[in-house]
Amino acid sequence: MTPTITAFAQSPDRGKALARDMRIRWALEEVGQPYTVRRISFSEMKEPGHLGRNPFGQIPTYEEGDLVLFESGAIVLHIAECHRGLLPDDAQARARAITWMFAALNTVEPPIFNRTIALVMERDKPWHEERLPILEDRVRVRLGELSGHLGDADWLDGAFSAGDLLMVTTLRWLSASKLLGEYPNLAAYVARAEARPAFKRAFEDQLAVFHAHAGAA
Amino acid sequence: MTPTITAFAQSPDRGKALARDMRIRWALEEVGQPYTVRRISFSEMKEPGHLGRNPFGQIPTYEEGDLVLFESGAIVLHIAECHRGLLPDDAQARARAITWMFAALNTVEPPIFNRTIALVMERDKPWHEERLPILEDRVRVRLGELSGHLGDADWLDGAFSAGDLLMVTTLRWLSASKLLGEYPNLAAYVARAEARPAFKRAFEDQLAVFHAHAGAA
Repeated sequence: MTPTITAFAQSPDRGKALARDMRIRWALEEVGQPYTVRRISFSEMKEPGHLGRNPFGQIPTYEEGDLVLFESGAIVLHIAECHRGLLPDDAQARARAITWMFAALNTVEPPIFNRTIALVMERDKPWHEERLPILEDRVRVRLGELSGHLGDADWLDGAFSAGDLLMVTTLRWLSASKLLGEYPNLAAYVARAEARPAFKRAFEDQLAVFHAHAGAA
Repeated sequence: MTPTITAFAQSPDRGKALARDMRIRWALEEVGQPYTVRRISFSEMKEPGHLGRNPFGQIPTYEEGDLVLFESGAIVLHIAECHRGLLPDDAQARARAITWMFAALNTVEPPIFNRTIALVMERDKPWHEERLPILEDRVRVRLGELSGHLGDADWLDGAFSAGDLLMVTTLRWLSASKLLGEYPNLAAYVARAEARPAFKRAFEDQLAVFHAHAGAA
């Protein structure tokens, strides 16, 4: 059964694939699963129809027959459990890959997301200029630890996994800043992931949606 | 094999069970699995021994023979997959319960944790007084949505699950504030969870550790 995911009708990143539907698109491409996309406006996200899919009124969601899921991490894990290619077969390696999924979302994403929130929502506040370097130092703490762990390995723990997929989509929020470049092995890690055919297909698909609807209401 | 978890040698919450090892203690009590606890000081957390368990130098970690995991969400999921009692048997209900685990950690925890960070790390900043109400309003957005979803149900989706366990441990960070009380069904939800025998056993165990070492170096 072909799943349906939701994505922003007009992505605020203008085609950079920073919204969380990219995680689902990429995961589905890695496992070779076709899908359809339902585009949702910001006002539709908070209406009863979409709140029935996700009580927090966010994208992405995932519908597959009767099953309705939300949370990009949960959806990626569901895809990884239903198809080969995103989690190792060995039970211990699988548990470690899932650990990296949670590390991406619960340890690395929060300081990176807080920097984004400050840039988007607090740029006009009198404290922004003094506070931004504090936020960037909190990001550096996590990047330094992650860089130390990765060393010269290709991926976080053996073969590419759903843990790398979530980590890379998180690190890409720093693509427009100089922060990632301070850690050359992390910048190379992101570039290595972006060179994967499945990433490229997912990226091109969301970019095509953006171009098709650019300027539309 | 009896697993070993790590916890703060001196919990900064003074026995309120707000540190993330509580999630693991509670999960293990729910499934009836004995465990041992290794107490770690703040300086030990950043030393090579512990960084080998968790590259980000945080607690909790989980060791079971050769397997070493970190991230409270990943550890709770691992426990839930190895023992009955924290995830439904039905595949769709199981996927939804896992969705709530990620919702707790990736949608509800961030604004709550940001309020805690501000109270602990930015209380002396000139912007603290003006910024705190902004942070509390961001918490209210999520609490309102969660409250709307919960309604008069006992748990988030059918029977108690690992999703409730992570959500409740997240909401408990608001126990000392008036925010939770603005949503009576959420306050009752937390109280209902705290009344579970497994929660009580986990709480008493961490409190005993705190009392045994209170005032120690």
